[in-house]
Amino acid sequence: MSCAAQSRIHARIDASAIAHNLARLRSLLALHSAIVPRVWAVCKADAYGHGLALSLPGMAAADGLAVMDVASAAACRELGWRKPILLLGSPANMAELQDSGLSPLHVVIDDESQLDELARQGPGDLTLWLRFSGDLRHAGFSAHAYRRGFERATRLQQTGIVQQVGHLLHYARAEEPEYLRAERASFEALVAGLPGPRCTENSAALLSDPEYAGSTAWVRSGIALYGISPLAGITGEHLGLKPAMTLFADIHAIQQVPAGSPLGYGGAFVAEHDLRIALVHCGYADGYPRQPGPDACVLIAGQECAVVGRVSMDTVAIDVTAHPAAQRGTTVTLWGDAALPVERIAASAGTIAAQLCTGLTARVPRLRAHGPLPEAQTQ
Amino acid sequence: MSCAAQSRIHARIDASAIAHNLARLRSLLALHSAIVPRVWAVCKADAYGHGLALSLPGMAAADGLAVMDVASAAACRELGWRKPILLLGSPANMAELQDSGLSPLHVVIDDESQLDELARQGPGDLTLWLRFSGDLRHAGFSAHAYRRGFERATRLQQTGIVQQVGHLLHYARAEEPEYLRAERASFEALVAGLPGPRCTENSAALLSDPEYAGSTAWVRSGIALYGISPLAGITGEHLGLKPAMTLFADIHAIQQVPAGSPLGYGGAFVAEHDLRIALVHCGYADGYPRQPGPDACVLIAGQECAVVGRVSMDTVAIDVTAHPAAQRGTTVTLWGDAALPVERIAASAGTIAAQLCTGLTARVPRLRAHGPLPEAQTQ
Repeated sequence: MSCAAQSRIHARIDASAIAHNLARLRSLLALHSAIVPRVWAVCKADAYGHGLALSLPGMAAADGLAVMDVASAAACRELGWRKPILLLGSPANMAELQDSGLSPLHVVIDDESQLDELARQGPGDLTLWLRFSGDLRHAGFSAHAYRRGFERATRLQQTGIVQQVGHLLHYARAEEPEYLRAERASFEALVAGLPGPRCTENSAALLSDPEYAGSTAWVRSGIALYGISPLAGITGEHLGLKPAMTLFADIHAIQQVPAGSPLGYGGAFVAEHDLRIALVHCGYADGYPRQPGPDACVLIAGQECAVVGRVSMDTVAIDVTAHPAAQRGTTVTLWGDAALPVERIAASAGTIAAQLCTGLTARVPRLRAHGPLPEAQTQ
Repeated sequence: MSCAAQSRIHARIDASAIAHNLARLRSLLALHSAIVPRVWAVCKADAYGHGLALSLPGMAAADGLAVMDVASAAACRELGWRKPILLLGSPANMAELQDSGLSPLHVVIDDESQLDELARQGPGDLTLWLRFSGDLRHAGFSAHAYRRGFERATRLQQTGIVQQVGHLLHYARAEEPEYLRAERASFEALVAGLPGPRCTENSAALLSDPEYAGSTAWVRSGIALYGISPLAGITGEHLGLKPAMTLFADIHAIQQVPAGSPLGYGGAFVAEHDLRIALVHCGYADGYPRQPGPDACVLIAGQECAVVGRVSMDTVAIDVTAHPAAQRGTTVTLWGDAALPVERIAASAGTIAAQLCTGLTARVPRLRAHGPLPEAQTQ
């Protein structure tokens, strides 16, 4: 008997799930406001680890894409994206933005020196978004510097150097409705009387308190687009979202572990009774959590099977004692099924789903869902 | 004033450090045994996250390279490696191994079905290593199946189907000398009277109890080659090793955070007094720990500066209140300096250095140490 072909860890990306999630967010917005804001589909970090090329087809109905840097914007243009692109990363070098192949381009501005540089460059078609640093304080203008920055940006608009100037904010605690209301009130006081569109709401804000979005021109959605809940204790499925990524690996070996015997590095796990253990080539070097928590499991033919012992660089061990049908070559779902959402693996490992998805390394092939099986392994 | 060019997170790889570490392990071996065993340089997981192409020049003096799969072996051959390659991943498809471009090839065998397949293929020049599952039990023959497997492999050798058959073991707790002695004794009992070379010792075993290595033909070294200690509570520097990877990013923004104000997502960090905060583009989507621990820090001009608040997808915040020279464009060392080894960041985050290095994502450019600065950003 020849050995079955073995497939190590790989991620299947379903662009139709992204399209579904985008439509779902739009219906939610339509339910709460007469004028539905435009949607930036956030695809930084290689589309939250899903792969830009595999994810973009699901974002076709979005009004724009939000990325971190110019190289990512150029990648989106190469993939055929023609609608606006927003640079969230506040570029240091404004001259790079003059490439007409990037247009229409929106740019987040954090600093007056960026406005100085634009002024020297002369007329262009950029749209600027001034970032208020808010409670996050990771970037942007402080409250006392914001109005002066806005006045300078407005002068650039008046002289045709930029096309429009808007107001942008990131919430530090978007999943807390009370906090949201307070932070929105601060922001409204800050921009009171100033012209220009606003962009403040993200996935968590849209889902926890959707009414405010109708007063803004654009919303941003990242994590929810990929079918993942931004709210603790709730899964994407509860919010009507579909996971865009499912992580698989095939069993490459079965081991018998007698009662009383250890398993895995460190000898931390010892079998209480005779166990039948399945091994899959998925390890922490792929981005699977090294310490996935005592309730971590995988799905085999729809059944939950416990992850046992410490995850090694290349291997996860699974208790299949009660699943005799699990054999070498049997496919294991590591996360992303409705019955095993990535949110659950994240909670078990003490992290968040965005960390797990973006933390998948180059060793994990991302493949189109329903496409051909992987041929080559990437290392 | 034009904005300084900003460099987001990138890893510098110093192949000369790998060469130094290999020489260091060899002198340690020579100190304890008359016959120095040959060394497999383990470069699975893209050379423990360092990048195969950047790391291989440092391994030129090794006797062989150990990788997981055929694709990685082929990559080593394309990079010009001519000495033996060991496939640790126990390939499912033995026909792939007949490619003469891969020779000389050593293959780990976990299962009799692999021997069946080899028998059908006829004469070849493979060297086999039978893996004893030991206490790790992640792969390999159990104690009762081992001798039968070895006899079958020996018959393949006698008929010219393979060249040699050796004995291989992974220790589950290689950092514990008492455990090592017990596991070695079990292994010696298992292979007593059987011909063939042995390969049991890894970095941790070599460094915690080096004498035994002289009785084996080959040793394997992974983590120590990259300058990282496999032993808890000891850094590579204490072992005479040099870190091969240093992780850098430049400050892209400075924020003032007034006393009593929060910083970062979740509002978990609140400034006790007025703070000056530096931001660098390095986040959990790059593989930096999302929750790096209360004692986590970076180096700026040789001075330790605390990481504050929760690490976000794209940003680490650093307290530079006491470092007025830290400005936009100033380079920050995230790990890999003698004064800030990756072992320390790992301990602070409750993980191990191998997880951090192999967990760096495709977004982090790996660059040759002392080479040119990064031009393009990868996303």
